[in-house]
Amino acid sequence: MTLSDEVRIALDGKWRHIREQSRVDLAQMDLAFDHDLTMDEARERSFAQLKPLVATGIPAAGFRAENGGTGDPGLSVTGIEMLAQFDLSLMVKAGVQWGLFGGAVENLGTEQHHALIPDIINLDLIGCFAMSESGHGSDVQNLETTATYDPGTQEFVIHSPTVSSRKDYIGNAAKHATIAAVFAQLITRGESHGVHCFLVPLRDEKGNDLPGVTTSDDGHKGGLRGVDNGRLQFDQVRVPRENLLNRYGQVDEGGAYSSPIDATGARFFTMLGTLIRGRVSVGGSAGAAGEVALSIAGRYALKRRQFGPEPGTEILLADYRMHQRRLLPLIARSYAYRFAQNQLTARMHRLQTTEDPDPQEQRELEGRAAGLKAMNTWHASRAVQESREMCGGNGYLAENRLTTLRGDIDVFTTFEGDNHVLLQLVAKELLTAYAKEVGGLDPLGMVRFVASTFTDTVRERTAASQLIQRLIDARPGGDDEHDLLDRGTQLELFEDREQHVLETAARRLQRASKSDSAEAFMIFNNAQDHVIRAGRVHIDRIVLEAFTAGIARCEDEEAADLLRDVCSLYALSTVEEDLAWFMGHNRISDQRAKVVTSEINALLDKLRPHLLTLIEGFGVPEESLGAAMLHDLD
Amino acid sequence: MTLSDEVRIALDGKWRHIREQSRVDLAQMDLAFDHDLTMDEARERSFAQLKPLVATGIPAAGFRAENGGTGDPGLSVTGIEMLAQFDLSLMVKAGVQWGLFGGAVENLGTEQHHALIPDIINLDLIGCFAMSESGHGSDVQNLETTATYDPGTQEFVIHSPTVSSRKDYIGNAAKHATIAAVFAQLITRGESHGVHCFLVPLRDEKGNDLPGVTTSDDGHKGGLRGVDNGRLQFDQVRVPRENLLNRYGQVDEGGAYSSPIDATGARFFTMLGTLIRGRVSVGGSAGAAGEVALSIAGRYALKRRQFGPEPGTEILLADYRMHQRRLLPLIARSYAYRFAQNQLTARMHRLQTTEDPDPQEQRELEGRAAGLKAMNTWHASRAVQESREMCGGNGYLAENRLTTLRGDIDVFTTFEGDNHVLLQLVAKELLTAYAKEVGGLDPLGMVRFVASTFTDTVRERTAASQLIQRLIDARPGGDDEHDLLDRGTQLELFEDREQHVLETAARRLQRASKSDSAEAFMIFNNAQDHVIRAGRVHIDRIVLEAFTAGIARCEDEEAADLLRDVCSLYALSTVEEDLAWFMGHNRISDQRAKVVTSEINALLDKLRPHLLTLIEGFGVPEESLGAAMLHDLD
Repeated sequence: MTLSDEVRIALDGKWRHIREQSRVDLAQMDLAFDHDLTMDEARERSFAQLKPLVATGIPAAGFRAENGGTGDPGLSVTGIEMLAQFDLSLMVKAGVQWGLFGGAVENLGTEQHHALIPDIINLDLIGCFAMSESGHGSDVQNLETTATYDPGTQEFVIHSPTVSSRKDYIGNAAKHATIAAVFAQLITRGESHGVHCFLVPLRDEKGNDLPGVTTSDDGHKGGLRGVDNGRLQFDQVRVPRENLLNRYGQVDEGGAYSSPIDATGARFFTMLGTLIRGRVSVGGSAGAAGEVALSIAGRYALKRRQFGPEPGTEILLADYRMHQRRLLPLIARSYAYRFAQNQLTARMHRLQTTEDPDPQEQRELEGRAAGLKAMNTWHASRAVQESREMCGGNGYLAENRLTTLRGDIDVFTTFEGDNHVLLQLVAKELLTAYAKEVGGLDPLGMVRFVASTFTDTVRERTAASQLIQRLIDARPGGDDEHDLLDRGTQLELFEDREQHVLETAARRLQRASKSDSAEAFMIFNNAQDHVIRAGRVHIDRIVLEAFTAGIARCEDEEAADLLRDVCSLYALSTVEEDLAWFMGHNRISDQRAKVVTSEINALLDKLRPHLLTLIEGFGVPEESLGAAMLHDLD
Repeated sequence: MTLSDEVRIALDGKWRHIREQSRVDLAQMDLAFDHDLTMDEARERSFAQLKPLVATGIPAAGFRAENGGTGDPGLSVTGIEMLAQFDLSLMVKAGVQWGLFGGAVENLGTEQHHALIPDIINLDLIGCFAMSESGHGSDVQNLETTATYDPGTQEFVIHSPTVSSRKDYIGNAAKHATIAAVFAQLITRGESHGVHCFLVPLRDEKGNDLPGVTTSDDGHKGGLRGVDNGRLQFDQVRVPRENLLNRYGQVDEGGAYSSPIDATGARFFTMLGTLIRGRVSVGGSAGAAGEVALSIAGRYALKRRQFGPEPGTEILLADYRMHQRRLLPLIARSYAYRFAQNQLTARMHRLQTTEDPDPQEQRELEGRAAGLKAMNTWHASRAVQESREMCGGNGYLAENRLTTLRGDIDVFTTFEGDNHVLLQLVAKELLTAYAKEVGGLDPLGMVRFVASTFTDTVRERTAASQLIQRLIDARPGGDDEHDLLDRGTQLELFEDREQHVLETAARRLQRASKSDSAEAFMIFNNAQDHVIRAGRVHIDRIVLEAFTAGIARCEDEEAADLLRDVCSLYALSTVEEDLAWFMGHNRISDQRAKVVTSEINALLDKLRPHLLTLIEGFGVPEESLGAAMLHDLD
């Protein structure tokens, strides 16, 4: 086996078999985006591409065996990631149908609803996931649509009378869905019990809107041309009582409400927690798209020559320092996020295949999924953009795919919640001991419940992180300027920064605990950038630890050596981006700070000969990259 | 007059009249992009939109009176900027026809060619500007296409036999141009005299390729759907001797070459220097696009509410600290770049309407145009992207225009040379005393000619900058932490940083002056990121000085006060982004560094009440923003 193979195996992780299978299966399916299609044609094509996916087994893996699936959530999420390597419109269509809609039915519904799952897997029932509203994007706890129980007919009346309560940006809604999982405030006997999910039929067999339902089209977008995003408005639409997905809340015939979870907020966030796979998939898919872009730009840099020391001796782009500076740290970051994503998928798999998952672990998983989604999608946007620019005019031609990736990936930063809101959520999970009770993201919930006993949570390690502790304990310490390449030193820098940023954020917020709400909001608001930063540096630490653990699992010594350098490049690039903080807080002296940049440049020199290996490690076969310019230069 | 009016007047600058006229004229022309058109239809529509522009006088302004124009280059460039506010495809079509093609004919040609200019202005002759080749993007000095003189027939033979010598990404080439200004290596009597420009007819009246000419289509792109970018290949195409644009180089009937400029490199860069308006326009147009995006996102932030201290009391996006942090520094930077762009335009106007421009001033102008193009286009990409994200899902819908801006503006960072290459050029101009002689961007030219007597160039001020010197002299000095708001302190920080980065870069490169070429290349390459950084910090300083000068010219005291805060926000944001440098080089102490962030936050609080005024200051009327969501929220 070549070094590339060994690196790829390390990156492929636990669900390597579905990656390998997808590389073959999907490559044969002719999934490349076609720019000559009209929007309608592109949507029909993406829809038609779903059908052959059924046979791959990826859709069924997302559902439990007793419901007609094969019960392999890790495989299901990894399979979606592989789709993202080929076409993001198809990834989103698949994610909406099987992940979001199917996931809602399985996780929020009960036996009577689970009977629908075989049809969902086989595409005999096409649904959509109607959560976001025009007036309510990230703040889904305060959705406006209502579902009011009428005991007279034993029906729920779904109603969204205003523009702001209109469901919006809903994938599959403009065209293909015949039914929607609609999130609405459940009201019975004059009392609201918070957001619940209802199955609401949308269209008849001819595709016409059912009475009271008005579907409309979001039309052209910045990308994802194959996805029919649309709007839904409900005018007193009646559905049977049984259409409530009633796992976490039930209304009896007479209208009495009951739920296994008392508090409205906690109930809603438990429901959301079961839908975590959406965030995991969005982050992983963004990561895959970034890898494709870097594979294109990296291969281009190994073929394209420009300028040179003498006329006639042009230099490969990959040999220019500036180009290395642009390309290699992005590749290193993609490696880092892939290891973190693999770890996240494995934990999610474990929790979702356990009878009684530990609530603390579940909560931690939700935080990581939210935070990694934010970091992965931002990184992907940046990687695709920089890749486009690194290919100059060629990068701007659609035939080289980068602009399609750019347009498609753009929305991922605000999918499943705006990234800043998600990082704020991460910070909140870390800062409050009672997040589940408080629920939501409202600023007051945050400041009021910052644990007054906020302690050294970072250092409360689980057994799994003994490796990390050993490395930290073994770090050289002292003033050695070259210790920045030592993993223990890097881990300690990241951990220490997180601890400090969290502690100081907590101290600022604690001041608000006894204020009135206007003042408390002001205190929260003044600290908002600090709080969001806390979420961010937490994820930086998680990622470095996951990379470290991934290397420890790598069985090939040569591959592990290479990965160690890549990991150091990730760590030092991250330190460099925040160098002013490390200096200002006396974590890195002025003298050591200068070494950061020179060590990065030394790593670039060291990794340059392995550039092709690193690209091949991503496991995107050259023939499936879909960039014409790579052949032109052969 | 309102405060907004006063701010707008200050930003409008010297060519305010054409801005005011364009706001009325262009708004009536229905220029908004239509996503339902096919690519062919979009191209025809953009082409048709050129015609009514003729009557605005903007095209004629770009040409000298003796050639049929009205001789107002500043107005011409400002007019293009205004087009960019409405539609970037149209801006590019106009820029190609009148700026690039027309500019080549006027500036590189002589009387015989100038006879074509009235037809160019009136669109009776449609041309394109064929410089870039598939294998040669930024390195235009080493183009491959040849023009070999045949004294037997008194013709030039234009030839581009390989894929790499093919002209590529040429606007107007796929469809509308009937003639091209082709850049090629001039060869006569077996000797090459470097790149010259030739008029080469492309198509007959029916639009068919002429013999030996093969045009093709670059097809779909990341944006600019109305622009027909294409490729040109020439197989021994013969054009009369007179088709050489012969201002800087002539071949007599017998084949003898002559030129007013002896050195090949110097000649080519003098030719390029006359075409500077392209870079000025690209930078200014990008700036305009960024302002449109920030106007949309800013107005959205003043209408859209999300979350809040209590249920039912949702907060405006504009009132969140994090949102202010995302939005206001970008607005401040747009202000800064507009002042710098106005200054650049005014200098360009002065030099281009002077009989014998000072070569030193011309050279400085070229450096500024290149550098400001780089900074303006990167900023625009970032501003449009952040605006899109600040509008969440709504931002991703084409009906809200931000994604169109995003796709269109993307290529501007690599238009007219990759931005990194341009900043390297800026640094080279600063570092070498002989740039004109050396010419080009080749690394060796750089290291070999770094002035061994590199001195305090930054401090050699022209008379125009006495204001800056006075402010610097009057700065408080000492350890006062609050002096960071003092303009003199800010100016001194920027100037001192530039001086230091330049000096240290020069010292690194000087080591190479006696090396062989392989070693010299290595020395250059190891310092490349440092060199590019030198170009960047130079432009930062130029921009801050231009902002300062612009405020001094503002006659309304209230507006000037507001602009002073905006300028400080620009200055401190720029310092914050490079804080590690300032700390590591003992320019800002750890204690003072902490003040940077708190001063920025204080400025955000101070500017928040003026957000609408700042947006209105850009002078993009709300009704011409073209974002549907702004009405939905009314």
